[in-house]
Amino acid sequence: MILWLNGELVPASQARIDPADRGFLLGDGLFETMLARRGRIAFLDAHLLRLARGAKAIGVALPLDPARIATACVKLLEANGLADAPRAALRLTLTRGAAPRGLALPPDPAPTLMIAAASAAPPPAGLTAIVATPRRNNRSPSAQVKAIAYLDNVLAKEEARARGAGEALMLDNDGNLACASAANIFIWENGRLLTPSADCGVLPGIVRAAILELAPGLGIETLEDRIAAARLPEIEGAFLTNSLIGAVPLTRIGERTLPAHPLTARLAAAYELLLDSADRNG
Amino acid sequence: MILWLNGELVPASQARIDPADRGFLLGDGLFETMLARRGRIAFLDAHLLRLARGAKAIGVALPLDPARIATACVKLLEANGLADAPRAALRLTLTRGAAPRGLALPPDPAPTLMIAAASAAPPPAGLTAIVATPRRNNRSPSAQVKAIAYLDNVLAKEEARARGAGEALMLDNDGNLACASAANIFIWENGRLLTPSADCGVLPGIVRAAILELAPGLGIETLEDRIAAARLPEIEGAFLTNSLIGAVPLTRIGERTLPAHPLTARLAAAYELLLDSADRNG
Repeated sequence: MILWLNGELVPASQARIDPADRGFLLGDGLFETMLARRGRIAFLDAHLLRLARGAKAIGVALPLDPARIATACVKLLEANGLADAPRAALRLTLTRGAAPRGLALPPDPAPTLMIAAASAAPPPAGLTAIVATPRRNNRSPSAQVKAIAYLDNVLAKEEARARGAGEALMLDNDGNLACASAANIFIWENGRLLTPSADCGVLPGIVRAAILELAPGLGIETLEDRIAAARLPEIEGAFLTNSLIGAVPLTRIGERTLPAHPLTARLAAAYELLLDSADRNG
Repeated sequence: MILWLNGELVPASQARIDPADRGFLLGDGLFETMLARRGRIAFLDAHLLRLARGAKAIGVALPLDPARIATACVKLLEANGLADAPRAALRLTLTRGAAPRGLALPPDPAPTLMIAAASAAPPPAGLTAIVATPRRNNRSPSAQVKAIAYLDNVLAKEEARARGAGEALMLDNDGNLACASAANIFIWENGRLLTPSADCGVLPGIVRAAILELAPGLGIETLEDRIAAARLPEIEGAFLTNSLIGAVPLTRIGERTLPAHPLTARLAAAYELLLDSADRNG
């Protein structure tokens, strides 16, 4: 495997992260996960905009302008023989870079930017989930950015596996639904499509935004709101979204089997069409 | 500088963290910061016990038993010419290691264990602080372990700097005092010594535990409890503790100057004596 690391294409076996990198020592960084289909990166501009916004929020300067990051992604796919792959995952990691010890921001920062590419499996037809113990830290600025700090999510995902489910739903500190371990969540309730609002510690997902844009055109009323976990036993259906899976129905939450909601499939299909159309025009 | 990395002493300039390390990609790991004085590591057993407990909590196997970690720390101090230094900082980092992409735990994990040593400045005589925006995620398991994920703390510390203070106090999600960006906090209130309780997202600090043990012998009543931030304007004094600074008075919180509390100095002195005595007997 070849990585793109600070401007160079390097074999992964030779690529070196500095042991003083603040990403490694302090989780002081951000990431993006992107889907490439036959060399075209879905919603690349939206990913790079979110990255730039996150970098600004935590005070890290992007070492490369977005256009050059886009070029690097394409070159990396080619270097890994993934330029024609039907599905590949790109993971972009940005950290504050190597620095002397301590929390204080380094006076002369040299951020680390790394991109990795891997082939990606097709999304599952459905996912099961439990409500996990770890909470989203919804009152902290880091909950609004795609921070490296995923230990809570890792523990949530492992809890799901141990309890026989594929995914972990995470609540915020007020007991409202926030997200899954690596996905946004939508629920159907009284015929409407709801998704947790930003104040619930929700990452502004790119597929989430696309679904919210597509739904009205299909006659679906949407609402971003606080959704108390206590409402889960009454919902009519649910699905998860992220860049790699698109929109995938939840078939079970805890002990409760969820019916297949007909509009989930329609939205997922509309989303796939949007991807195809972006590929043709982008 | 020489690092200890997975069993080897390596020049830092040659030490390589794998770009697939889950510490770097997901903040999936723990750390310890320890004080060494002329080659003796303060409360080494307590640090290694906390590390072992944290590792168990997040499901990472310690790649080395505690006795061999202790030996590695001593060798590392020697290799860096710090065996006779009056004060040195040891930072031990444990991650789940390099693994394929995704949150699921790797079937065959190879944890990374790294130790770095640096000389440490004497502690300041006093510290100023503000109450920062980021919150401790007190309802999550990761708040109970010394997780790598320090972005909230980094942002809190930077907010302190921007607002003209040296330290940042962090609240939990219920508005109770939790800690500082890299220290526990104690406050004096009605003649008693209080420190936030574990349910406030408090790391079980080693100096914190020592202070709680020492205080009764000095006739000081202590209490671990929830401390609403609204009580800060009325407190009689406060101090911060961590392994590198020991116990250091807060001289100001926000706009309010805090008086020097006579018992803070007595406790700090008792703590220094405890360190000296541990050096002689340990």
